Amino acid sequence: MVSSHLKKVTGSNITLPKGFSAAGINSGIKYKKKDLGIILSEKPASAAAVYTTNKIKAAPLEVTKESIETEGLLQAVIVNSGNANAFTGEQGRLDAYAMRNEVSERFGLQQIHVGVASTGIIGEPMPIDTILKGIQQLNPASKLNQALEFSQSILTTDTKTKNACYSFTVGESEVVLAGTAKGSGMIHPNMATMLSFLTTDANISPQNLHHALKKVTDQSFNCITVDGETSTNDMVLILANGYADHEELTPEHPDWGTFLQALTLTCTELAKAIARDGEGATKLIEVTVEGAASSEEARAAAKSIVGSPLVKTAIFGCDPNWGRIVAVLGYAGIEMSPEAIDLYIGDFPVLVQSEIERFNHEEISGYLTGSEISITVNLHTGNGIGKAWGCDLTYDYVQINSSYTT
Amino acid sequence: MVSSHLKKVTGSNITLPKGFSAAGINSGIKYKKKDLGIILSEKPASAAAVYTTNKIKAAPLEVTKESIETEGLLQAVIVNSGNANAFTGEQGRLDAYAMRNEVSERFGLQQIHVGVASTGIIGEPMPIDTILKGIQQLNPASKLNQALEFSQSILTTDTKTKNACYSFTVGESEVVLAGTAKGSGMIHPNMATMLSFLTTDANISPQNLHHALKKVTDQSFNCITVDGETSTNDMVLILANGYADHEELTPEHPDWGTFLQALTLTCTELAKAIARDGEGATKLIEVTVEGAASSEEARAAAKSIVGSPLVKTAIFGCDPNWGRIVAVLGYAGIEMSPEAIDLYIGDFPVLVQSEIERFNHEEISGYLTGSEISITVNLHTGNGIGKAWGCDLTYDYVQINSSYTT
Repeated sequence: MVSSHLKKVTGSNITLPKGFSAAGINSGIKYKKKDLGIILSEKPASAAAVYTTNKIKAAPLEVTKESIETEGLLQAVIVNSGNANAFTGEQGRLDAYAMRNEVSERFGLQQIHVGVASTGIIGEPMPIDTILKGIQQLNPASKLNQALEFSQSILTTDTKTKNACYSFTVGESEVVLAGTAKGSGMIHPNMATMLSFLTTDANISPQNLHHALKKVTDQSFNCITVDGETSTNDMVLILANGYADHEELTPEHPDWGTFLQALTLTCTELAKAIARDGEGATKLIEVTVEGAASSEEARAAAKSIVGSPLVKTAIFGCDPNWGRIVAVLGYAGIEMSPEAIDLYIGDFPVLVQSEIERFNHEEISGYLTGSEISITVNLHTGNGIGKAWGCDLTYDYVQINSSYTT
Repeated sequence: MVSSHLKKVTGSNITLPKGFSAAGINSGIKYKKKDLGIILSEKPASAAAVYTTNKIKAAPLEVTKESIETEGLLQAVIVNSGNANAFTGEQGRLDAYAMRNEVSERFGLQQIHVGVASTGIIGEPMPIDTILKGIQQLNPASKLNQALEFSQSILTTDTKTKNACYSFTVGESEVVLAGTAKGSGMIHPNMATMLSFLTTDANISPQNLHHALKKVTDQSFNCITVDGETSTNDMVLILANGYADHEELTPEHPDWGTFLQALTLTCTELAKAIARDGEGATKLIEVTVEGAASSEEARAAAKSIVGSPLVKTAIFGCDPNWGRIVAVLGYAGIEMSPEAIDLYIGDFPVLVQSEIERFNHEEISGYLTGSEISITVNLHTGNGIGKAWGCDLTYDYVQINSSYTT
């Protein structure tokens, strides 16, 4: 059920919510492409973030975490691409703090109101002087153009920018929620993976914002997979500055559900854009698992299917190789009965209660030539439903990831 | 420490242990290649097997399990390739029983002394009449040639047969242990994965044989990965017929350790042969993890590294991309400290206590052009040591797995 007040906003960008500005420039980390960006709020905003589960965390994540944990507020986020500042030891930490400090001085903000994010090569020293000089050149504005330049500045092997935006009402006030993301292209040498920044003018406490973000992330960004790798730098961060000027949103507020819907739609749209733009990808694959023992098991099963190299190569080859999908269900570690599986590729029934349907092989092959592929499974075990998104595994994935240095 | 009595046997084949014969023929499941094989013991042999952990188990596995669980003895194993008899429902079960019955009648054995294995396409009805006629044509003999024909008959997309053999003494008696395996090539449509059959003339109870096989499998076959998929048909089966005529081997016997060594060497040699012959592989990768909290964690970390698509593509591209290896350690779910990692590619130190060594990039790239790559990690967390084997991820993997039907 989508609230009637909830609307998709076209020309979506992260400066549409009131009180936000942004910028993105080439500072010289990369040769010509944009590599440094900032999001700025006119006042300290409620902030929440979720981070990679990788035990090796990049320095900027630690700094951002420290900033957010102090007051739950951020007024700016500084982001560079081209160097991940990961596995860079004590110097890396000092460099992340230097970025935070430079933004604080340049824009007259408290240090603990500044977040830092980096993406790019790991294990290389940061060109910190270049970055600090770049920060001095940032002139954030509330225009579409600057927002798009920010979106560009965070990209690595992504082939396009990723943006989404929704508006909804809380009481009588219009609230806007926007997001941008960079994708799961692993860069020179890798580890770029996923960053996403969300802005909203909603009025919400840091605690409630965190709960909402955690819940929605589990159903969106955590349900995509390109190659099963987990980066050292992953982060999803949201800022809510309250400029929409409504009564504070809490889980008890009648419009809380609408806010969650807007957040879910925004994050899902960005997550799908990341999957679609996975390295070497030619197709977006959406897997829906129904009838699982729980939603968690449904999502786990969907992720296992969409992460299987054999399923991914079969779909690249337009091959309705349903046996591979069934075999994944068997090792996905979920409750299931081999005798009660329904399987659809697109709208074509392949298995009903584990009986093989008389499907037309060529018809399904034809369907698989499309650029959006859906696979639906019903396990008939419980009421859990979940989705996951991924992409096909292609020659280009091997090409991109096997040759970068020499 | 390798016992002085333990020797590798060249010209290795599964009929070298006393009292075993074998055969392999084309029965007509495949067009021309061999597709049906048998191993026969002159008397019922102690038998033990480990099976896939996939919840969708092929029918022949259930039948073999039933046979072994009855008395712990098998006298014959019938194996076909070309059709996995998996996800074939009640008819599949009947077909597997029919194969067992036909072997029992043809060779005058008890039904419960016959094991059945299949590998090949899943979800297709078995050409059971063809197979039953084929069983009538099997004429097992104790010659090298028949043993090799058996090795051929179990192959799917494997490019070569895989055999290993060791001899050792128990008291005054010479004992021979031999094994053959088929590899992790996933076949038309997939699911062939791994079968291995081991024969020995050792005198050992089914229970002790099972414990030994379980222990050794965890350190050999369970430490290889080609693409992280787990088939419906995996099985490792060992027959010990006691013809070497020595005092029964038990864990208390002074030569028990030698037996375990022989079993470990045989299984490891076959496991490495499978990894080396992975679909599209150009290199064997051996990862050793030392200083882990436990051997289990060491093996888990080694498997995660050797299973990482980013590591596999980097090695295919001869790219000393150590950041990818470190990042895998971070998400492998093991105890580790990001500050205390040693990493060697071949003999080249890359990280010592997480400090980046001044290594020569081109020298390591040169090393990576070889066909056997070793990676060694020390986590400095405990005393656990473990190894895992895999192969690189290449264009040919994508090619083999994206195009089979059309």
